Amino acid sequence: MTDLPNDPIERLIALLARTPGMGRRSARRAVLKMLMRPQETMLPLAEALTEAARAVRPCETCGNLDAQSPCGICRDPQRDRHLVCVVEGVADLWALERAHAHRGLYHVLGGVLSPLAGIGPEDLAVGPLLTRIAAGGVEEVIIALPATVDGTATAHYLTDRLRPAGIAVTRLAQGVPLGGALDVLDEGTLAAALRARRPA
Amino acid sequence: MTDLPNDPIERLIALLARTPGMGRRSARRAVLKMLMRPQETMLPLAEALTEAARAVRPCETCGNLDAQSPCGICRDPQRDRHLVCVVEGVADLWALERAHAHRGLYHVLGGVLSPLAGIGPEDLAVGPLLTRIAAGGVEEVIIALPATVDGTATAHYLTDRLRPAGIAVTRLAQGVPLGGALDVLDEGTLAAALRARRPA
Repeated sequence: MTDLPNDPIERLIALLARTPGMGRRSARRAVLKMLMRPQETMLPLAEALTEAARAVRPCETCGNLDAQSPCGICRDPQRDRHLVCVVEGVADLWALERAHAHRGLYHVLGGVLSPLAGIGPEDLAVGPLLTRIAAGGVEEVIIALPATVDGTATAHYLTDRLRPAGIAVTRLAQGVPLGGALDVLDEGTLAAALRARRPA
Repeated sequence: MTDLPNDPIERLIALLARTPGMGRRSARRAVLKMLMRPQETMLPLAEALTEAARAVRPCETCGNLDAQSPCGICRDPQRDRHLVCVVEGVADLWALERAHAHRGLYHVLGGVLSPLAGIGPEDLAVGPLLTRIAAGGVEEVIIALPATVDGTATAHYLTDRLRPAGIAVTRLAQGVPLGGALDVLDEGTLAAALRARRPA
């Protein structure tokens, strides 16, 4: 690592400040607090970091991060193996898991297509997805990519590539978020919700 | 530690979420980000935590936290040993150091007197301060305690206890903070600033 101070306290503050969501000020306050009870706070955290860095790897099947591969979800006999949900990244997979709304498996794409950023299908787990579908057993692929320009384009691309497999390909519904006030919603979401209106 | 999950990822999130300033949500996001490059992010942080927990201890002279005792400030031949600034805790010492405004040494009290919380002089580093002054060489004690009821009472108490030593005892000025708009300041600060007015 570059530019790290040698002093143990300053070094720890600098490293903790690199944690997403932490600034220098909050890192300093956290270190000071932890130094009051280092054995109870710092050592368990150090051990958990070391253990996670050692044990956690991407699942060879779906790309989820877990201490085992295939991951806990892919191994779970309770999950519906006919249903595969395609997500951009592990963060989205975890978010769906927290919602307890998907009973099938996942496939982490590792990004979305982006001609501007030079990200093509070969940079994403598109090939492994097609191989997985070709192996049989999957009846529906749910595309749960972000509702951005790149995400939508990627969804179209995947739909085209999956068509020959002759399975159902679906996408997440778009509309008004639960509890969402209409007057603060962007026009695109409002228009999409109106177009996709359903009988009351 | 109680109630910690066994799964390495969940365990790390739970421990990181205990860090002051971090919530569960930010801990989860941070762990996910770090898991993308565990060798570069998690292992250095784990080592820094372990090293800090091992090396850092309170300075036997002033109570500052440092990897050496006496601490770097107490050892610094450039600091003015005639001047000792009394602070409530190490956080205040660090804040004063960042201001580069104090060229003397420090004394960390470890709290302030609080009859309600049952904190008396024997719970704070009052004895060590008097011993330090009695050893000679200190010409001025600057009391930099918080401007709260307990902080002010503690300042009065220390002033009384230090009087027999026959040295100067001073306190931080109270007034309008730099860049502070008058209309958002509390009345107490405004009144104090008015009482302590100086020739323009």
